Amino acid sequence: MDRIRIGLIGGKPGAFIGDAHRMAMLLDGEIELVAACCSSDPERARAAGVVLGLAPERCYPSYQDLLRAEAALPPEQRIQAIANVTPNAVHAPVALAALRAGFHVIADKPLCMDLAEAEALVTAVRDTGLVFALTHNYSGYPMVKQARELVASGALGAIRKVVVEYPQGGLARALPRAVAQGDLAALEALRVPQKRTARSACMADIGTHAAQLAEYVTGLSIDQVCADCDPVVPGRELDADAHVLLRLNGGARGILFASQIAAGEENPLAIRVWGEAGGLRWRQMEPNTLELRKPGEPIQLLRAGGAYNSAAAKAATRMPNGHPEGYIEAFATIYRNAARCIRAHAAGVAPDAIAADVPSVADGRHLMAVVEAVADSAAANSAWTPVPRFD
Amino acid sequence: MDRIRIGLIGGKPGAFIGDAHRMAMLLDGEIELVAACCSSDPERARAAGVVLGLAPERCYPSYQDLLRAEAALPPEQRIQAIANVTPNAVHAPVALAALRAGFHVIADKPLCMDLAEAEALVTAVRDTGLVFALTHNYSGYPMVKQARELVASGALGAIRKVVVEYPQGGLARALPRAVAQGDLAALEALRVPQKRTARSACMADIGTHAAQLAEYVTGLSIDQVCADCDPVVPGRELDADAHVLLRLNGGARGILFASQIAAGEENPLAIRVWGEAGGLRWRQMEPNTLELRKPGEPIQLLRAGGAYNSAAAKAATRMPNGHPEGYIEAFATIYRNAARCIRAHAAGVAPDAIAADVPSVADGRHLMAVVEAVADSAAANSAWTPVPRFD
Amino acid sequence: MDRIRIGLIGGKPGAFIGDAHRMAMLLDGEIELVAACCSSDPERARAAGVVLGLAPERCYPSYQDLLRAEAALPPEQRIQAIANVTPNAVHAPVALAALRAGFHVIADKPLCMDLAEAEALVTAVRDTGLVFALTHNYSGYPMVKQARELVASGALGAIRKVVVEYPQGGLARALPRAVAQGDLAALEALRVPQKRTARSACMADIGTHAAQLAEYVTGLSIDQVCADCDPVVPGRELDADAHVLLRLNGGARGILFASQIAAGEENPLAIRVWGEAGGLRWRQMEPNTLELRKPGEPIQLLRAGGAYNSAAAKAATRMPNGHPEGYIEAFATIYRNAARCIRAHAAGVAPDAIAADVPSVADGRHLMAVVEAVADSAAANSAWTPVPRFD
Amino acid sequence: MDRIRIGLIGGKPGAFIGDAHRMAMLLDGEIELVAACCSSDPERARAAGVVLGLAPERCYPSYQDLLRAEAALPPEQRIQAIANVTPNAVHAPVALAALRAGFHVIADKPLCMDLAEAEALVTAVRDTGLVFALTHNYSGYPMVKQARELVASGALGAIRKVVVEYPQGGLARALPRAVAQGDLAALEALRVPQKRTARSACMADIGTHAAQLAEYVTGLSIDQVCADCDPVVPGRELDADAHVLLRLNGGARGILFASQIAAGEENPLAIRVWGEAGGLRWRQMEPNTLELRKPGEPIQLLRAGGAYNSAAAKAATRMPNGHPEGYIEAFATIYRNAARCIRAHAAGVAPDAIAADVPSVADGRHLMAVVEAVADSAAANSAWTPVPRFD
Repeated sequence: MDRIRIGLIGGKPGAFIGDAHRMAMLLDGEIELVAACCSSDPERARAAGVVLGLAPERCYPSYQDLLRAEAALPPEQRIQAIANVTPNAVHAPVALAALRAGFHVIADKPLCMDLAEAEALVTAVRDTGLVFALTHNYSGYPMVKQARELVASGALGAIRKVVVEYPQGGLARALPRAVAQGDLAALEALRVPQKRTARSACMADIGTHAAQLAEYVTGLSIDQVCADCDPVVPGRELDADAHVLLRLNGGARGILFASQIAAGEENPLAIRVWGEAGGLRWRQMEPNTLELRKPGEPIQLLRAGGAYNSAAAKAATRMPNGHPEGYIEAFATIYRNAARCIRAHAAGVAPDAIAADVPSVADGRHLMAVVEAVADSAAANSAWTPVPRFD
Repeated sequence: MDRIRIGLIGGKPGAFIGDAHRMAMLLDGEIELVAACCSSDPERARAAGVVLGLAPERCYPSYQDLLRAEAALPPEQRIQAIANVTPNAVHAPVALAALRAGFHVIADKPLCMDLAEAEALVTAVRDTGLVFALTHNYSGYPMVKQARELVASGALGAIRKVVVEYPQGGLARALPRAVAQGDLAALEALRVPQKRTARSACMADIGTHAAQLAEYVTGLSIDQVCADCDPVVPGRELDADAHVLLRLNGGARGILFASQIAAGEENPLAIRVWGEAGGLRWRQMEPNTLELRKPGEPIQLLRAGGAYNSAAAKAATRMPNGHPEGYIEAFATIYRNAARCIRAHAAGVAPDAIAADVPSVADGRHLMAVVEAVADSAAANSAWTPVPRFD
Repeated sequence: MDRIRIGLIGGKPGAFIGDAHRMAMLLDGEIELVAACCSSDPERARAAGVVLGLAPERCYPSYQDLLRAEAALPPEQRIQAIANVTPNAVHAPVALAALRAGFHVIADKPLCMDLAEAEALVTAVRDTGLVFALTHNYSGYPMVKQARELVASGALGAIRKVVVEYPQGGLARALPRAVAQGDLAALEALRVPQKRTARSACMADIGTHAAQLAEYVTGLSIDQVCADCDPVVPGRELDADAHVLLRLNGGARGILFASQIAAGEENPLAIRVWGEAGGLRWRQMEPNTLELRKPGEPIQLLRAGGAYNSAAAKAATRMPNGHPEGYIEAFATIYRNAARCIRAHAAGVAPDAIAADVPSVADGRHLMAVVEAVADSAAANSAWTPVPRFD
Repeated sequence: MDRIRIGLIGGKPGAFIGDAHRMAMLLDGEIELVAACCSSDPERARAAGVVLGLAPERCYPSYQDLLRAEAALPPEQRIQAIANVTPNAVHAPVALAALRAGFHVIADKPLCMDLAEAEALVTAVRDTGLVFALTHNYSGYPMVKQARELVASGALGAIRKVVVEYPQGGLARALPRAVAQGDLAALEALRVPQKRTARSACMADIGTHAAQLAEYVTGLSIDQVCADCDPVVPGRELDADAHVLLRLNGGARGILFASQIAAGEENPLAIRVWGEAGGLRWRQMEPNTLELRKPGEPIQLLRAGGAYNSAAAKAATRMPNGHPEGYIEAFATIYRNAARCIRAHAAGVAPDAIAADVPSVADGRHLMAVVEAVADSAAANSAWTPVPRFD
């Protein structure tokens, strides 16, 4: 097994999402981190490289330098892919530049700022034929994959109802007090006070995870939304709380709510799905259990590591059951699958079904369309608003 | 202590809600069941009376007979109140007749069929000065009372967001199959296939419990609704699934969903409330725990029986903590409080604050207004619809 | 249905266990409380009777008066049974007197003070042929009955291991401080500072519940014990903490621990049983769920009210699933079954299997033998000590 | 930061414990795996090296070759430490050889086969001054560290009682059937049918984790044991089920049970500790929560990532709260701390307190003494047996 060589753009050490990407890369030993541009400040970029144990000459002062210099290295040395862990506002330009330079892209979500950027990215991926993986990491959990499998297998019958929720508390505090109290998420918000993001900030930040989870598990697509969004906290310009009624293709209905003002909440992303023949529930904070309910039968708790799980769920499980795996492992599954897609690409073959199971640039475009439809509906006093579909 | 004498109308033995009312009456030893009209069939009424251990002469063939004959008994023998456990369609006429006959009323929810009936009931209660208690039994749970107290005390700061949910599975099955399989709820539905109820059946049946819980806990009132309702199951005429966005007075927003097609669910009514300073969660199926979350602090689990609970919560708790109380006990608290209101009425004094804490006819009218607004919004493609207010 | 008429001895209103017995009697409407001697002080006995709504002439100043006077009433008026809710030290004399007066007995646990008293009770019950029910109320829970059924049906294969635990915190505090702080259990302990009870106070108070639960669920009998017991809290003379290794008939092994010094605990009696083919777990504080684990299969949560439960479990369930029942309901099932045994006795027939499922005087004697064996083992530096068997 | 270079002995890819060690090494990017002898078969050793992406010349056919060849490499290339993931029976010889060759050792538990080997290892570590870290990985969990901190800070008062439990089901099946059904753990058992291990196999395999956890959290030491052990499954020679009463220094008492025949269980290692002023509970399968109970107060759930946690707990947490970390992360904390000890050793300084918090060779010796005392007690019909103390 040759390790895939990756260059990291953004994601400086010590920041949550940067650390998550880095550990996710390293966990399975299939990827090597060999270059980085963690900061546009050359001093800081160098310092970060030392912390990461990188060769000094591969700690670049700008992402453009990274792409250029790496492209100039011999094929067996240069990076094969970039990990795009930059702020939302530069997701698209960085990814486009990387694709044009011939590098595969593993990209943090949301895909970009708007549907126009999303279109450009879809086109670039199609034109270059390169691998593009979007780190909707929650779909890397084994019991999410098992939930998807249960639905696909018909265990629940036709799906009628979906409730997906993502209440967080990071933006609950009024801004100045948050600073005084050192609240990380609020500080982050302050630093870029009205941060550049999609038109619904709450949907872009966390609602896309919820939407992706709902669609991944059910295999359905959100067709229409009826949304009520609000900044809630005085002084915020962008929404921090989104309530959305859903209509999905095939007639299922549902609810998505995402909130950053749910004071005291951690990260309890959760989904419930009900079909004609039963229901399931999965909760991110107890990710190794999947509840399955069928009328008249005992509740079943399917567990990560269970012999009864699908091949996809098993492939996303590293330890025997009862040895809890978590967020980093699920994230690592996205990276590992992407690495295997890249290895398959190098070999000129199609990746196997398990490796191919990574959120794509087309998924990212659809999710940007959902974000925009939510923003449109909220702006139109919660009028039902269609989500545009792409071939 | 004199026991309050009650006559039961409807609520035949063996039916869920009849049994619940009867056990709730008896539990605390403050009420005596002395008369009944459990069936309009004289044979069945007599048989039911025997099962309940009643004197044969007080097992009446019609509710009119019951009211007339009891009114003719000497004051120290005759019933003081009726328990109205009839089908929704006759809630109002039975209650009105009882009030006019001079009897207090303890009434199953929903209050009645529509706002016009509700107005008549409010008027009759005002005119007679009699006690009227509506059995929104979930507000009888001690930790619901503690939740209300926490919000009222400002422990969460100003309330920003409420999510109340009530997914049940009783109507999930297609109708004919349900009959074949002996599904109780579906049979019930079949027996009165398009049963006479309010315009949103799902809201009337269970959504009113959710709405009452949300308002009871937060002290806020639902001002506007944006609803999407659906029968879901082919062959049903009335809705069985209701998704509702909420706007409450004071600016809080929220979600209410009630469903009777959530296959495999039991009775997981639950509420979450978030304010500026924290959040709380209560779940009916684990009713003795109340979760309290404050940013930066350990999660607190308040428990029924805890010394730290409010007087109202303590009064609704019969056993030391760790000795679980449940549905019947919460229901009994409504009955006990109503009995104490009746005793106070007899003594010509006002009931104390704890006894007075029973859902009123005015609450019932407001909840009928919510039901109708939901039906209106759903009929208007989810347009935001105001809930009329009464002074 | 005629209600069974009961006289209450001990169990004054406001005390936990008195309230529990009284509500348990009343819940199902099959029993009438018609006489009482709640206190040996005539004033207090009268006052208690008023609170309970009893006829003044049937509020007796002593239990002897109660037995004598009731026996003198016409058969259709006099009590049929007593509820013996006296302190442990007088359990036996009160029960013996009641049996001799021709009354059935429903008795709080433990049966009595020692094995000699237990023998006398067994003899008296045999000689009189009267009904004797011991309120090991935890065996009244539906999911405990379902657990017993699963084991009996062979679902777990041969039983290999049992862990039963009962950690409470009531006696954790040093005594004087507890008084100052109004701790109920500690006060109770103080009132009878070195209270008269069996030789292992902790086993008598709560350990018998654990032992009864273990044997009821597994159908096995504790054969030998190896125990380490300790007062723990300075100033206590009797043990408050018991650790016991178990050997059961048929070769299963296990652990029983009971503690009254587990500071902060409520009432988390719990049992786990493992056999060749799987394991189960039940917890009193979430009593409506029974966990069943089989190697290689999803965990099953069986729920009170589930259509798949046994007839015994269903008979002990009053509400549809998801409507939690608790401690009082389980206690009431013991009373209801006892009432039905008494009704069968009056009719000269054997009770049906479900009614007959109440802990017996012979069970009480065996449990006293377990208590004494634990005390003996603890006194012998944890030597394995046999529990005597009775034919 | 220079990465610590490690050579892996044993732990072939695909085997649970090998994978755990390897991912634990890699996760934090502070360690490089550069050499291995995963098999004594040269072909297999080479193949494993390829899977791991190692240089072919550093995939050695024997551990002796590895030690010799690596020692001959220039200091900046050669390994600094070995990871000893061999079978129990060769733990000691491999570790001794590595220490003698000048390499630090990170060793899987149990330390070795018996107390004599343990003494030799303690001496070798003392004589060489090298780092020796024993992977009692459960003490790497942040909430275990927080539990230790709470006890040390006096939050529970003097400790009175400990219950630590480790029921697994891997050896529940009769041996031949297990093979037929492909049960991994049973196969493993079969392959070395009466596997070479310490005198109590169950204690060596899993009981040492439980004992270490109890002592790590409480800061107390197990002084005496009273044990009942049993193979349970016909055909096994070694015990698979251990019930142990504990007496700890300072007067606390407790229970440890470890079982490999608890059919259907996964890996629910758990601990409860009670002191004068409260109790705590931690469960490995929901590792990010620590329950704290104090009489008269709400239950507190302390959560990994909470701002209120100790420095040690925070250092063992990589993600914000609500982003679950698990078994691999806890294991990685042991490796990361060991790596930092090695880095400090190289720098000639003492490691900081957080890095120094790794189970030591002396801990391993004490735990071997506990294992032997349990075996002795079980052989002596559960006589209380002292655990020898060192220095």
